[in-house]
Amino acid sequence: MNSTSNQLLVIFGASGDLTARKLIPALYHLYEGGHFPENFVVLGASRSNMSDEEFRKKVVYESPYLKEEVKTKDAAFIKKFADIMYYQDLGDDYDSDYTDLKNRIESLDKECKTNGSFMFYLSTPPSLYEPIAKNLSDQGLTKGSGNDKGFRRIIVEKPFGYSLETAQELNKGLQKYFKENQIFRIDHYLGKETVQNLLVTRFSNSIFEPLWNRNYIHHVEITNAETVGVEKRGGYYDKSGALRDMFQSHLLQIVSLIVMEPPINSNAEEIRNEKVKALKSLRIMRSEEELFHNTMRGQYVASSINGKRVKGYREEEGVDPESKTETYAAIKFFVDNWRWKDTPFYVRTAKQMPTKVTEVVIHFKTPHHQVFKDQDINNKDNKLIIRIQPDEGILIKFGVKVPGQGFQVERANMDFYYSSLSDSNIMDAYERLLLDAMQGDATLYARADEVEAAWAFVDPILEYWANGQDVNTYGYPAGTWGPKDSDDLIEDSNGWRNPGEHLTDESGFCII
Amino acid sequence: MNSTSNQLLVIFGASGDLTARKLIPALYHLYEGGHFPENFVVLGASRSNMSDEEFRKKVVYESPYLKEEVKTKDAAFIKKFADIMYYQDLGDDYDSDYTDLKNRIESLDKECKTNGSFMFYLSTPPSLYEPIAKNLSDQGLTKGSGNDKGFRRIIVEKPFGYSLETAQELNKGLQKYFKENQIFRIDHYLGKETVQNLLVTRFSNSIFEPLWNRNYIHHVEITNAETVGVEKRGGYYDKSGALRDMFQSHLLQIVSLIVMEPPINSNAEEIRNEKVKALKSLRIMRSEEELFHNTMRGQYVASSINGKRVKGYREEEGVDPESKTETYAAIKFFVDNWRWKDTPFYVRTAKQMPTKVTEVVIHFKTPHHQVFKDQDINNKDNKLIIRIQPDEGILIKFGVKVPGQGFQVERANMDFYYSSLSDSNIMDAYERLLLDAMQGDATLYARADEVEAAWAFVDPILEYWANGQDVNTYGYPAGTWGPKDSDDLIEDSNGWRNPGEHLTDESGFCII
Repeated sequence: MNSTSNQLLVIFGASGDLTARKLIPALYHLYEGGHFPENFVVLGASRSNMSDEEFRKKVVYESPYLKEEVKTKDAAFIKKFADIMYYQDLGDDYDSDYTDLKNRIESLDKECKTNGSFMFYLSTPPSLYEPIAKNLSDQGLTKGSGNDKGFRRIIVEKPFGYSLETAQELNKGLQKYFKENQIFRIDHYLGKETVQNLLVTRFSNSIFEPLWNRNYIHHVEITNAETVGVEKRGGYYDKSGALRDMFQSHLLQIVSLIVMEPPINSNAEEIRNEKVKALKSLRIMRSEEELFHNTMRGQYVASSINGKRVKGYREEEGVDPESKTETYAAIKFFVDNWRWKDTPFYVRTAKQMPTKVTEVVIHFKTPHHQVFKDQDINNKDNKLIIRIQPDEGILIKFGVKVPGQGFQVERANMDFYYSSLSDSNIMDAYERLLLDAMQGDATLYARADEVEAAWAFVDPILEYWANGQDVNTYGYPAGTWGPKDSDDLIEDSNGWRNPGEHLTDESGFCII
Repeated sequence: MNSTSNQLLVIFGASGDLTARKLIPALYHLYEGGHFPENFVVLGASRSNMSDEEFRKKVVYESPYLKEEVKTKDAAFIKKFADIMYYQDLGDDYDSDYTDLKNRIESLDKECKTNGSFMFYLSTPPSLYEPIAKNLSDQGLTKGSGNDKGFRRIIVEKPFGYSLETAQELNKGLQKYFKENQIFRIDHYLGKETVQNLLVTRFSNSIFEPLWNRNYIHHVEITNAETVGVEKRGGYYDKSGALRDMFQSHLLQIVSLIVMEPPINSNAEEIRNEKVKALKSLRIMRSEEELFHNTMRGQYVASSINGKRVKGYREEEGVDPESKTETYAAIKFFVDNWRWKDTPFYVRTAKQMPTKVTEVVIHFKTPHHQVFKDQDINNKDNKLIIRIQPDEGILIKFGVKVPGQGFQVERANMDFYYSSLSDSNIMDAYERLLLDAMQGDATLYARADEVEAAWAFVDPILEYWANGQDVNTYGYPAGTWGPKDSDDLIEDSNGWRNPGEHLTDESGFCII
């Protein structure tokens, strides 16, 4: 295990929901797991007026997200955790004077012996990234003295940009005050064990990589499905949509791990170099014709699931009743490099689907010569299914002999479940990523060029959907597998694989 | 399903144990499964004096091998089965006059409308194959008029020969009177579903065949282990030994299915052509030095298993107290063809082992470049384990990410069990093979050139073990995994995989 040196974590937006809901519980679990360095301090900062004790009450003692822990654990153990929390009021505005903050940081650093190592976590809207960075810089807080002692790091949340241009502006804004190796752009999907296992599956086994190319793979299919609608986030979501919210970030991260070449080693820069190269090799669609044939957007419409009426997207709170924002996005694309030329990738993400699932399906080509009669003629291809969530695991669909005379073939499953690993004390994604940042390991954080390459691919689709001719927004009843025409996008005669709750399940097209 | 035309089955050696123990029960199950043609007659023939009714009593009504069926099934149903049985006394000698037999066959054929289609099953010592064939020929019984109506076929049992020379003699003896396509040499291993599934696994999937060669496979390991000793067969076994009894027939059949090139289709001749080619490509060892380094024989010695004393081989009834006959044989060899050059094959078979098991292990090469740290450094290779029996199935050992920080790798299993197939009404090997012969399908029967190619490979080893210098017979305590030095034969640092009872088990070297 890597070592974590003494440090001070400043959380901007400390009074917000994310801090209480995600960050503090993640910190608590790191504390419980013994992952804190000897000296560790958390300084919350935001515009609210709170004392240290009030902050501790809010995010620890009275937090609904640590209720169970506070109730059941030893009081002294909880107090020791709460006592590393401090709070600093920033005044009316994040762009006000940071002198007080600076003084507070320096006095805490001295008192608690955190060696001048500071990490700034920006749990704020992206518009505040640059002002905060600038103010930190003005106070001389961005330049540390080294990596282990006296480091300075900044962690920012997604959405990282709204388009290629805005992402570039954000990067520029941060890079004025921090060096790229100080900036940690968090994408919690990369904190998932199963996402990281994509790399190990590919590069720690000699049986997959020889097949991992255009010669043996017919197409690659990635599905991210949620069973919920926009819930209370209608206002935000209607300005964003599925492509920005899921595809540009999480799904293109998964794509990059599938597409990438083997890195020379597992260092952060080597892996990220390959990921950038992968994202840059996605063929950007530029003509309206290409965009028309290879992209599809949809919106869920009202339906009834198990006898209960479910609202359509345009009826949701905060959503424009004439909105064209997609809650379903399906993209077909090609990868222009030596390994993948002409192998189509199909990626879809949507809300109000029958199953909550994220999975990758590698469809191998059918055997090029048919030696035996095959019963299941429509299902002849071998499939490698990598389940990101839930029921995490790997499944191979392959042909076996039907018992009896002759050589009839049918499909069977060979499977592995991540839960079968004995020591599966799996860290939550946030917890894992926070610890990585505390140790300065940026492997699972997105680099500026990575984020920009993803936007460069997505931008023309967004532009086409916003202003193109002949763009449809297909309706699909909530609780179904998307627009009826979505199977036309995919050239497999079986259409999309519509996964069920478990790794081995396949669900029908429509459950209503 | 193929159709089975009306026919008459003549069993030579009908009063023997194999007929009652194997053949008649197999026929009964075919009858029960509705696999008999409309008109089907069984005529038992041997030197005993019996009436039809006495024969029916012996092999059906009073047979210990059909006791359960006779007791529980409808009497009329059993009677219908018994009534197709007839018996013909051959007199003092199998080489006496067959005129009576001929007349009986012809009258039964007429009466029961079996269309002049006769199948001769020789459940006799090999020395009788030629005399019986000659007498059948003398009576004009070997030449039929066609394939479907009026066919004539002969089925012979193993051991088929004792050496290359004796096998050639047997073939010549039979081929004087029957054409090769009339001769069915039975090897019940080929009747096993899991053995046939080797072909389907390889040629109905696009993911295995690209890896199935010297570029990706490090070595191939085949183990056939029995937990029993020679039991009551000491007299026979001491003249035969493990190499003749198991290796030359069953195990080289499995080797041929692993080694062979893809056939152009699944016709009997195409598959057998490839199998012969495979067997011919085994590098025959000629020098004493090669034979010394690549072959090992052993004999179990007395030990105590679970506190009970177990006899050594030389103490067994019928065994020469100074016998050098092997109860353990391990052979390392190479395959001289384009696909397999320099890939070692390790095959062993033995009695008095800790586990009763037959399995094939494909050891893939370790990844040629190490991207991640690997915890389990001695077990880095991917393995494909094909379990022939028991607990039939397929298992892949592969690397997955250890949950937690960094990219630590550990081994996991992905498995498929044959028993999970819903319609696993699996025919017994004998039953399956008999039905194939009744339908004229010789795919799973050994052709003359196949048998001879196998002997050609085995002969020099037998000759060396019989007369070579420096030949040891290594002792191993009954109930252990063979001679202590046997791991030296195999170049894998882990030695042999010593499988446990279940597909996922690995057992230690020694259970005593």
